[in-house]
Amino acid sequence: MNKLLVVGTVAFDSIETPFGKTGKILGGSGTFVGLAANQFNIETGIVSVVGGDFPQDYLDLMNTKGINTDGIEVVKKGKTFFWSGKYHNDMNTRDTLVTELNVLADFEPVVPDSFKDASIVMLGNLHPLTQASVLDQMNQRPKLVVLDTMNFWMDSALNDLHNVLKRVDVITINDEEARQLSGEYALVNAAKKIHEMGPKYVVIKKGEHGALLFNEEKMFYAPALPLASVFDPTGAGDTFAGGFCGYLTQSEDISFKNMKSAIIYGSCLASFCVEKFGTQRMEQIEQEEIKNRLQAFKELTQFDIELT
Amino acid sequence: MNKLLVVGTVAFDSIETPFGKTGKILGGSGTFVGLAANQFNIETGIVSVVGGDFPQDYLDLMNTKGINTDGIEVVKKGKTFFWSGKYHNDMNTRDTLVTELNVLADFEPVVPDSFKDASIVMLGNLHPLTQASVLDQMNQRPKLVVLDTMNFWMDSALNDLHNVLKRVDVITINDEEARQLSGEYALVNAAKKIHEMGPKYVVIKKGEHGALLFNEEKMFYAPALPLASVFDPTGAGDTFAGGFCGYLTQSEDISFKNMKSAIIYGSCLASFCVEKFGTQRMEQIEQEEIKNRLQAFKELTQFDIELT
Repeated sequence: MNKLLVVGTVAFDSIETPFGKTGKILGGSGTFVGLAANQFNIETGIVSVVGGDFPQDYLDLMNTKGINTDGIEVVKKGKTFFWSGKYHNDMNTRDTLVTELNVLADFEPVVPDSFKDASIVMLGNLHPLTQASVLDQMNQRPKLVVLDTMNFWMDSALNDLHNVLKRVDVITINDEEARQLSGEYALVNAAKKIHEMGPKYVVIKKGEHGALLFNEEKMFYAPALPLASVFDPTGAGDTFAGGFCGYLTQSEDISFKNMKSAIIYGSCLASFCVEKFGTQRMEQIEQEEIKNRLQAFKELTQFDIELT
Repeated sequence: MNKLLVVGTVAFDSIETPFGKTGKILGGSGTFVGLAANQFNIETGIVSVVGGDFPQDYLDLMNTKGINTDGIEVVKKGKTFFWSGKYHNDMNTRDTLVTELNVLADFEPVVPDSFKDASIVMLGNLHPLTQASVLDQMNQRPKLVVLDTMNFWMDSALNDLHNVLKRVDVITINDEEARQLSGEYALVNAAKKIHEMGPKYVVIKKGEHGALLFNEEKMFYAPALPLASVFDPTGAGDTFAGGFCGYLTQSEDISFKNMKSAIIYGSCLASFCVEKFGTQRMEQIEQEEIKNRLQAFKELTQFDIELT
């Protein structure tokens, strides 16, 4: 089976939305990417770190789902990364209430030998030096390197970010971050500038407004599925990225045409993620449900105009 | 030829954007709808009112484009409706600097006999009683009635708006207005509530984020074409509506499937409108350009996932 290597956080989240409030539940970018990627017929390995307080049950859950957790270091005396946030009524904005880095503060990723030949690597939103160190450990250059980042690293580690970007094929970033990184307002122009920094493919995430994929002169747009209720948006962006990487890993076809399908799979899985708190919905998802929702995406976007 | 009747404003606009500033130029919702609709092989008639200061050249221009202006009343002693606005740097927000209703204040639309049998009627953004009076003058119920409105009428004439909505098939409205009219935040739910008010079809315009078409359980999404530069957004929404109505009038097919194509044509024409000040770009558009841009919309949205 083709292999996907994911580096990202495995964490506790505590979430408040207009619909309710959770205690400490399973979260983290690596977790969401992994759960989405493993909807495909691939081997996914997560590189991360947790504390001694992290329940074995959560690791067992990931293993049950076919996710390889050999790369998740357990620091017995440490505490797991903890994030707590509260969503506003529109669900598009949130306040971070607590961020406790804990064991993440000294995280030095170690790629397990069995994943040093992974064909696709997803570098989750972490310090650019941490992301680079994962690439350094690979046996050869992966077929495709996907990187997620955020404004925090643009503010605090821009040079390191630029260095790692030179080694990256696909960047996933939100619209405001694309504007910040490029200094361009129009997303078409922002993508052009970011191409020059390294990534041949630029994926711009616009939340409820969908996502754009740019590759030089080519563009593709995937809407988010309009939903009657968004229960909890936490992890939707990581689920999107996980679906994207998972699909590409399974097919090992990194053409622009296939990336279009990958983006649709990502949007499709993200539409499930937001239906329940945390990882709950992603743990229960059925292949038949995915198929039906892909059909909904087709009906939402496909039209029939003959151009002669 | 099939006939489209449009009621809307024919006006002077004065526009300031980060790219420049105009004097008094041709504008108005009826003008933009008409110029877009007449890209199709139909007869378009505009019902509106202008003052004695309105140049014959502008009426001649419309006639040259095949637009019937018999329904545009000229009030010799009056002044033409004037709007002036200034766009902010992001081009998504604007300040209205001047609104002089002038002859529009006492506007009583008179539908020319030759358009009382129009198959499709587009009720532009005017007082709901004015919109209703146009419907009252038709020989029979048109095949399709499309209505555009805005928050101003929800604030000032909600009952009248509800009354005219009962006689309407398609409403076009922006996202914030859909939320205001329905009291629902999620657009899926907003559309449901608006269906109950009359319109079987709800088109929600989201500016640079595209447009959604709802019909009971069915949904369709058309993106806006990502553009390197938006020169002047004035009239883009009306151009969108004009393209939508024009395409439907030409085909006389008001199925949901055909409305999908109509929405794409609307988005396509709107993407031209914003390239120059006012109506400038819409006056010069070539069929070949439209075809090429429709192709760009296909590439932007169409994907190939086989569901077995």
